[in-house]
Amino acid sequence: MSAKKVADLPTPALVVDQAALDYNIEVMAAALPGARLRPHVKAHKCTSLARRQAQAGHRGFTCATIRECEGMVAAGLGEDVMLANEVLDARRLGALADAGARLTLAVDSAETIEAAVRGRVREVIIDVNVGLPRCGCQPHDAGRLANMARDRGLSVRGVMGYEGHVMIVEDGAERARQCRESMEMLVAAAADVGGELISAGGTGTYDCNTWANEIQAGSYALMDTQYGRQGHPFRQAVFVLATVISSPSEWSVADAGLKAFGMDHGNPELDGSQVWFCSDEHTTFSPPRSVGDQVWLAPAHVDPTLAYHEQLHLVSDDEVLETWTIDLRGW
Amino acid sequence: MSAKKVADLPTPALVVDQAALDYNIEVMAAALPGARLRPHVKAHKCTSLARRQAQAGHRGFTCATIRECEGMVAAGLGEDVMLANEVLDARRLGALADAGARLTLAVDSAETIEAAVRGRVREVIIDVNVGLPRCGCQPHDAGRLANMARDRGLSVRGVMGYEGHVMIVEDGAERARQCRESMEMLVAAAADVGGELISAGGTGTYDCNTWANEIQAGSYALMDTQYGRQGHPFRQAVFVLATVISSPSEWSVADAGLKAFGMDHGNPELDGSQVWFCSDEHTTFSPPRSVGDQVWLAPAHVDPTLAYHEQLHLVSDDEVLETWTIDLRGW
Repeated sequence: MSAKKVADLPTPALVVDQAALDYNIEVMAAALPGARLRPHVKAHKCTSLARRQAQAGHRGFTCATIRECEGMVAAGLGEDVMLANEVLDARRLGALADAGARLTLAVDSAETIEAAVRGRVREVIIDVNVGLPRCGCQPHDAGRLANMARDRGLSVRGVMGYEGHVMIVEDGAERARQCRESMEMLVAAAADVGGELISAGGTGTYDCNTWANEIQAGSYALMDTQYGRQGHPFRQAVFVLATVISSPSEWSVADAGLKAFGMDHGNPELDGSQVWFCSDEHTTFSPPRSVGDQVWLAPAHVDPTLAYHEQLHLVSDDEVLETWTIDLRGW
Repeated sequence: MSAKKVADLPTPALVVDQAALDYNIEVMAAALPGARLRPHVKAHKCTSLARRQAQAGHRGFTCATIRECEGMVAAGLGEDVMLANEVLDARRLGALADAGARLTLAVDSAETIEAAVRGRVREVIIDVNVGLPRCGCQPHDAGRLANMARDRGLSVRGVMGYEGHVMIVEDGAERARQCRESMEMLVAAAADVGGELISAGGTGTYDCNTWANEIQAGSYALMDTQYGRQGHPFRQAVFVLATVISSPSEWSVADAGLKAFGMDHGNPELDGSQVWFCSDEHTTFSPPRSVGDQVWLAPAHVDPTLAYHEQLHLVSDDEVLETWTIDLRGW
């Protein structure tokens, strides 16, 4: 164990509270054990963290990019990797399958089926639109696409459909109601498609989505302030550690800003303080603190926050236990 | 010259139109020749691009992070590098000065002056608050801090003061008025401080800030949609190239999202289209286009956009001319 102290970390630095991370992984593994959860690595982009999820019993993983798939396979976590996204050049994925990884690719059109064939991908899943205006075929079209894929020699593992529009509904009962609506569409499509997988969901619906037979949650492990408002049992585990570099008046400035936080869900939060705004390398907040103080800023959106950082430090109290590379960044 | 085509780039990819980049650099060098401009590398984080700015006559550069300073020196661009930001651990900067680079560090308090001394930094500039609630001492305190720095053996090169609150004012006349207010404070502080530098400004005030004797503009080289609305002569040079991966209904989905764009100034823009929203790896827009089409998305804020990408491709029409590493990322 390193004797490195949190106080000695150059800032900004991504820090993860080990106790909170362990707790979140345990709570989720109890709720959705083993294959009931297919953790989404896009939330953390870190194979060291994925390994903790695998140790908790989840052997299949969800990815959003080809680079994430490649990194998971390279880390020995390629037992059952699903790219829950469409691509038009699947050759790097076919190469992973050639090398022995189990790789499943989402398809939602004739073009993406042809890309899978050209890329030598073996297994696909039919991506069904369940209400979020994003990828996925119309539900009534799923059976036709499955037949087309099988005709082209692909194995069809089932359906996926991401109810992303439901994730951000803060009220739990309303979230459950909208989730049911989406999943009724997906279950109907599954009947047309066949195969064993009905893959859907996320941290926002992990507890109410009882229709999918695997849930693609990712944010639960580290959390963010947006999911924190939904009342789930998960704890905020990730923070950006920053140093107060200036306290010129009734505010202070910490040395972490727009290049340390995904900002689409708003400003980071600082316990007991009011965050005024972020600029490229700064967060201005009040009341002021002493120059040199360290502050722990909680990100509003975990996924695009992690994507800015090269590494994270696993910490316990004032001690740095391990440093993990965020090795799945980029494309 | 590479025969690589834009159509062959894996997406998302950062592309820079060479003609627009050259034009922007030329226009700025004509307006603020040589040392009148101290280009800010935080906007692009790319030493290959900084080298083009040096070739246009600007030999001094502005940085926002220690990593940016280190990278500029390593690239042979360390003739006069200013870290326009406060730090409490300046040892890596002192090491650059030890190795022969000219390194100037912003200070705004007794604590940051002591950090400069401890870090073996030789030259500092007094950072003055000119209205933006961020770093910088109160204007009336600048002379006292300069004396304190000199007493501690540091050389004081002058003052800097960033009128960042003025940058985002869309109306040119109002921008000029507010810029004058800020710069009158800075010029008064300069009289108390001494030294030769009055360093300030940015792309938003490069043409109206006639008080500073050097301007720290960065965004002008690549531009973004926010600065594009201010009526400056600079052209949008940087885009995120994305592929349409799904067109399931009255919208399309391109494969670039929250991890490819700084989002604090809002969604990217797509010529002739309405951008609906971004998610981690997707941008949904209408009207729909064909699956497989490439689209060029213009970022709303250049600095945090560049910080997400490992490289940029310099392009001319359908040809990729060069690929540059964005080598100043991180801290």
